[in-house]
Amino acid sequence: MFKKYFLAVLILFSASLPALSQTSDSLALKKLTDEILLNGKAYENLYRLCKSVGQRLSGSAGMYKGEEWGLQALKDAGAEKAYLQECMVPHWVRGQKEFAGFKTKKRAADPTFKVLAIGNSVGTGDKGVLAKVIEIANFDELDRRKDEVKGKIIFYNYHFNKTLLHSAYGDAVRYRGRGASAAAKYGAVAVIVRSVTAAYDDNPHTGALNYNDSFPKIPAVTISTKDADKLSNYLKGSYSEDDLFLRTNAMMLPDTLGHNVIGEIRGSEFPDEIITIGGHMDSWDPAEGASDDGTGMVHSIEVMRALNAIGYKPKHTIRIVLFANEENGGKGSAKYAQEALEKKEKHIMAMESDGGGEYPRGFSCGMTKEQFAKVDSWRKYFEPLDADKFLFSEGGGGGADIGPLQKNFKTAQFGLNTTGQRYFDMHHSAIDVFENVNAQELHLGAAVMATMVYLVDKYGL
Amino acid sequence: MFKKYFLAVLILFSASLPALSQTSDSLALKKLTDEILLNGKAYENLYRLCKSVGQRLSGSAGMYKGEEWGLQALKDAGAEKAYLQECMVPHWVRGQKEFAGFKTKKRAADPTFKVLAIGNSVGTGDKGVLAKVIEIANFDELDRRKDEVKGKIIFYNYHFNKTLLHSAYGDAVRYRGRGASAAAKYGAVAVIVRSVTAAYDDNPHTGALNYNDSFPKIPAVTISTKDADKLSNYLKGSYSEDDLFLRTNAMMLPDTLGHNVIGEIRGSEFPDEIITIGGHMDSWDPAEGASDDGTGMVHSIEVMRALNAIGYKPKHTIRIVLFANEENGGKGSAKYAQEALEKKEKHIMAMESDGGGEYPRGFSCGMTKEQFAKVDSWRKYFEPLDADKFLFSEGGGGGADIGPLQKNFKTAQFGLNTTGQRYFDMHHSAIDVFENVNAQELHLGAAVMATMVYLVDKYGL
Repeated sequence: MFKKYFLAVLILFSASLPALSQTSDSLALKKLTDEILLNGKAYENLYRLCKSVGQRLSGSAGMYKGEEWGLQALKDAGAEKAYLQECMVPHWVRGQKEFAGFKTKKRAADPTFKVLAIGNSVGTGDKGVLAKVIEIANFDELDRRKDEVKGKIIFYNYHFNKTLLHSAYGDAVRYRGRGASAAAKYGAVAVIVRSVTAAYDDNPHTGALNYNDSFPKIPAVTISTKDADKLSNYLKGSYSEDDLFLRTNAMMLPDTLGHNVIGEIRGSEFPDEIITIGGHMDSWDPAEGASDDGTGMVHSIEVMRALNAIGYKPKHTIRIVLFANEENGGKGSAKYAQEALEKKEKHIMAMESDGGGEYPRGFSCGMTKEQFAKVDSWRKYFEPLDADKFLFSEGGGGGADIGPLQKNFKTAQFGLNTTGQRYFDMHHSAIDVFENVNAQELHLGAAVMATMVYLVDKYGL
Repeated sequence: MFKKYFLAVLILFSASLPALSQTSDSLALKKLTDEILLNGKAYENLYRLCKSVGQRLSGSAGMYKGEEWGLQALKDAGAEKAYLQECMVPHWVRGQKEFAGFKTKKRAADPTFKVLAIGNSVGTGDKGVLAKVIEIANFDELDRRKDEVKGKIIFYNYHFNKTLLHSAYGDAVRYRGRGASAAAKYGAVAVIVRSVTAAYDDNPHTGALNYNDSFPKIPAVTISTKDADKLSNYLKGSYSEDDLFLRTNAMMLPDTLGHNVIGEIRGSEFPDEIITIGGHMDSWDPAEGASDDGTGMVHSIEVMRALNAIGYKPKHTIRIVLFANEENGGKGSAKYAQEALEKKEKHIMAMESDGGGEYPRGFSCGMTKEQFAKVDSWRKYFEPLDADKFLFSEGGGGGADIGPLQKNFKTAQFGLNTTGQRYFDMHHSAIDVFENVNAQELHLGAAVMATMVYLVDKYGL
């Protein structure tokens, strides 16, 4: 691209700026967002988290290292008080590397497949499971073929539906989340689930499952999208009559002590009214948890840093919360909401970033109609950032970690939404690393969050 | 992220879908965009272009290989007619690797810097240029210090302004484009220009300059952002009195024969009324020209493929044009417009993609108010794709390659706009490679373009 095109765009985009310069809020918000875009520390913080801490699965050594990183990052961002809030968290471990492959004496080199145990799953133990595999397209087919399931490994080969855009994940994740119990109900001995991702590659994507206590807990693994197709082809062809050997040493250990990491600035006018902004500390173990949810944590910390940097004194108490155990239990968010209830705290708003560090588009707004009318009137401040898409849902949620606050307090919820098309390529897999986050997009996300926090703090909701 | 969040988003996004399903246009457009998202060939085409052709600078062997790739890709996409349109293009060559470093006898190992000759620039020849360097922040400072410039190398250290978002490139590229002549006016012997990019790394970003014929043509290079800071520090410190040695063997050879590559489907009702959709073939030489502008070419080709795939018969003649020589001359677009004028063709709309394959946001719309009112009434069809941002400019342009059509024909212009924050990290540098393009984002861009082409073809403008 040569320069002519962008000069045209310059003129067009600039047309939306004058409105901004008319008010002192506009000037303050320009100062706030410029501070983030020019001097933001979110990208540096993320680098440190990814490269010196790495994965932070609940109960792991990484979780404790992450908590230390978080405390220091919050202090560096100007928190007046930075502390840990104890909570018991599940302690699931993957154990030795998983194995899945056909096992037959007919052939010299039987095919193997790239799999990862699904979080919270039980393992097979060293003896493994040896059984025939039945490929199933979806739950309807499972129900229709229930009589064939007993003693088999069920292979859910449900495809991520790329035409659903932002809802493709919610659609496909059902198989990872409840596929094991659905199959166990009919007597299956294990499940293999096609990775929940738009990517077509060799990376299995893990994540949590929830067992239904009415049925036996059976081992569960995810398989990379390429190997899902490979397995499907073998099952239709030369290995249709063969058993597959599956081994995972995953297991759930007793709950252990984890922490929400909290940084606070006391409000100047309404110190007892709290604004919570957060992301989650824990991450899956195949990589660094850069986008899930390192970016949410550094977004949140950056909001506090930038408000301090421009000398803004919040009226309400601002709390940055790095939630424990979002991925496989939600114990951190439950504890935070429970303690708030016990202390009779007043929570006026909560904001969460758990959709990655991509280009921000706006918020999911779970609140009352009256509150949303006020939020909607601020849309003009988000237009220059191209992040003015507000999705209203009366009483809806803004995210898994702030949801429990709404239950007890009717706290207005803001979930940051991003373009989100790259997120699920990396999500819960070996490529969720720092290098797949862009600095400018990350800082734009923090700028959008800070803008909303400023407005709610100044004008209430 | 666990599933709850996305289920909420699923519900919220779905809320905008019912409107779509009410009309036959909505159904046809859903079929069209689903075809692209599920079966799109743009990503595969881009892979082939990047990995089997590579760089395609005007006049280079890569350009000819690119033209062959383009002809084949257009035929594969269902063009009834695919042909070359001759045009003479500049033939600039970089020559042997550039060198820039302090040269002194005082020190054993003097520092060197990562530089690339700017396109269209003259070289120093083997003898190089040895001169003191003056760092200049901007053109104002150059004018103030004009008396110091004679015999010096001018180092423009103007920073890419990240707070300008979509207009940062247009702001900073002035120094690359006309910095050489501005300095030559005052007697400078060469210029070094800080790379026009938001990235902070070791990759110099090339691109074109335009010499002003009133002043001597002097050598010009870009320097990576990290090395710009390094050079600045040396100039303020231990090398403030030293000469810098600069060598580039760039030169402009005589013009040579290039081609616009064109694929066509004849219109069923208005065969003499033409819709042009295009990107440009040529690319800078440090990498593969994946995002600039491989993505624009495969976007355009995909529009034709998808319209064919769903069995849509266009009323107007659809022409996909892979323009020659956008980067350093614009000879391809000039030729296309000139021949259209000679043949008295009627061009009702032209669309260009030259902003990379990132998540699409909408179009720059250069047209009459009446035309824009019609376009704006179609906004609802773009909402499900989150690409409903239409930037209107009365008589404004949609891009460098389609601009000349407007001059002669008042052809309505559509320039695809993307989120665009990653584009200038790679632009014109060694990292503009296939791996930095996301398949789903790329296909979304083609879906947005195809949607507009369908509507204009069906309802006119």
